[in-house]
Amino acid sequence: MSGPFTSVAILGCGLIGGSLALASRGLEGVQSVRVTDHDERVRAAARRELGACVVDTVEEAVAGAELVVVAVPVDSIAEVVAAAAVHVQRGAILTDVGSVKSDVVAEVEAFLAEAELPETQFLGGHPMAGSERRGFEEADPDLFRGATWLLTPTRTSAPEAFNAVAAHLRAVGAHVLAVDPATHDRIVAVTSHLPQVVASTLAAVAEEAAETSGEGVLSTAAGGFRDVTRVAGSDPDLWTAILAHNRRAVGEALAAFRSGLVAFEDAIERGDRREVHRRLQEGRAARQRLPVQRREDRLVDVVVPLPNRPGMLAEVTTTLGAAGINVEDLEMRHGTGATRGVLVVAVNGWDTARRARGLLSEQGFPGHLEAR
Amino acid sequence: MSGPFTSVAILGCGLIGGSLALASRGLEGVQSVRVTDHDERVRAAARRELGACVVDTVEEAVAGAELVVVAVPVDSIAEVVAAAAVHVQRGAILTDVGSVKSDVVAEVEAFLAEAELPETQFLGGHPMAGSERRGFEEADPDLFRGATWLLTPTRTSAPEAFNAVAAHLRAVGAHVLAVDPATHDRIVAVTSHLPQVVASTLAAVAEEAAETSGEGVLSTAAGGFRDVTRVAGSDPDLWTAILAHNRRAVGEALAAFRSGLVAFEDAIERGDRREVHRRLQEGRAARQRLPVQRREDRLVDVVVPLPNRPGMLAEVTTTLGAAGINVEDLEMRHGTGATRGVLVVAVNGWDTARRARGLLSEQGFPGHLEAR
Repeated sequence: MSGPFTSVAILGCGLIGGSLALASRGLEGVQSVRVTDHDERVRAAARRELGACVVDTVEEAVAGAELVVVAVPVDSIAEVVAAAAVHVQRGAILTDVGSVKSDVVAEVEAFLAEAELPETQFLGGHPMAGSERRGFEEADPDLFRGATWLLTPTRTSAPEAFNAVAAHLRAVGAHVLAVDPATHDRIVAVTSHLPQVVASTLAAVAEEAAETSGEGVLSTAAGGFRDVTRVAGSDPDLWTAILAHNRRAVGEALAAFRSGLVAFEDAIERGDRREVHRRLQEGRAARQRLPVQRREDRLVDVVVPLPNRPGMLAEVTTTLGAAGINVEDLEMRHGTGATRGVLVVAVNGWDTARRARGLLSEQGFPGHLEAR
Repeated sequence: MSGPFTSVAILGCGLIGGSLALASRGLEGVQSVRVTDHDERVRAAARRELGACVVDTVEEAVAGAELVVVAVPVDSIAEVVAAAAVHVQRGAILTDVGSVKSDVVAEVEAFLAEAELPETQFLGGHPMAGSERRGFEEADPDLFRGATWLLTPTRTSAPEAFNAVAAHLRAVGAHVLAVDPATHDRIVAVTSHLPQVVASTLAAVAEEAAETSGEGVLSTAAGGFRDVTRVAGSDPDLWTAILAHNRRAVGEALAAFRSGLVAFEDAIERGDRREVHRRLQEGRAARQRLPVQRREDRLVDVVVPLPNRPGMLAEVTTTLGAAGINVEDLEMRHGTGATRGVLVVAVNGWDTARRARGLLSEQGFPGHLEAR
């Protein structure tokens, strides 16, 4: 598969950056992939696999790049974007892979506005892949196949930038879903950050109990316990920063979880079997409704007339993203004279297209469908 | 592999009973396996696989059986044991597979004492296998290979009964670990029942959040979320009874978990990165120390002189069980005249044997080792 970029720079060469470098190198049309990392040992390790692609400085990496992917921990994203932005060529698109978006995206957008770099586009991103693994040694060109890659366009995002980044990510195998930064942070607080806190706490509590009951008892733990605590193996440095940057949404998720837990505990304690059953049943139904990723093969365009003002792109794409609809392609055709502009959103299959049209219509964007 | 029983009855034909029936049929030396279930449809389904092994009543199933396995939900164990006990032959051994042990074992032992059936041995059991699957249609003769099967001997348990049941379970591939009923309940409260409550609550909270943020957001959940919530798919009927029977230990586990969670939440909220990091690190260390099941090939006897009084067997075996040491074979040689009795405990490998000797010595049972 081919993407729209011929030259890609990747800053940060851990699991995500390394995997994206390996995957991008194999793409049709990509002539140059340059990678760097602030850690000399990481660069040396990466060089054994990627050879001359690995360079020593951000400046060398981004020279001539059309796409710059900042793949560093959340604490360092703004700083690395700033370092890259002064060296990138005009029109380059920057994106990141941080697990938290609201404050990262706001910080970067404020910097770009202040630095008067209007030609440099930044689009927040977050691949849902990797879980508890880490480091270049775990890098895998197939890491993103079938994984969801969230992009977080804002009022200032250009459709061309979204489209181009999404095309590159789809080319490495990801499903691209648009969602606004605040919603992103609320979602991952529940589906990723809360589970991390829960798993870490559970593992620690189990070990404490094991110390009381005898050191060997954890060997009896069945597969269920191993599943529940798997993500407790994740990197503490990485996660300390993630939880700090998403403090508010994580706090809300923890509060909701704790209130559910207390109610469950009360029902068990007072022997209310009916309520215990209801809560188990509710959890099972929720688990069983977890969507399975499916793909159809036919692209269908949802064509929506648009008032020509900023922010509409984000509204349309995040409405679809929130409904789990992948935007396969996106084009904005500007109107001339009496003709209004239209937004053309390609989605996969007629069912999805009909659902997308319905959702957009509810949002005040009535449209029509066209087979591609 | 061959076990000590030629005739086995299994009462209850769900995942565990069905799997044990399939596994037991294939054992050398087993001439008869009889299975029944109170549900006629389950019997019909089992009959298609097991043929004439499946009979209609408990009485037919247990006639002539040396081992009777009661594989019914925890609510029904005492009742089914009582129904079986009046029909079993003299000297038969009964065991169960319930996920809760203290009150089940106490209830059954009280019944056997009251009914004056001193020749009928009961030994509590709990295979750590199956997780969220259920029903005869999931039955698998290899279900127990590599799984831990906890046995909960008490003061009244005969070593011969423990030995025979353990040998049969090892023959179907399980690792047998002895643990007293109360410790069993505390262990599973932490490693199995708490994770169940946590997973069910987490799945329900995530769905609630998804309803607020858009129905499709759960499709973004990465593998970590699927891992953490997997056991939420378990059967609510089964789990309602388990949580009711282990109410106290589950309450303690939930309290410990909640207090860890609140402290974690506080650290996140006040931006205490050092404490957040410490808790993540603690969880990771605990997860990484989860023991991996290993097997050596050489049996070593730990020979311990014993005062000839009841309850010592349970003390010795549960001391080893709490340390994660599998008892591979167990024999009590009674003393004559001036000779004291000895307990011979076979374990796997010299390292394990040395560890076992040290533990028993600390408990006041100094012993020596003999290669088998």
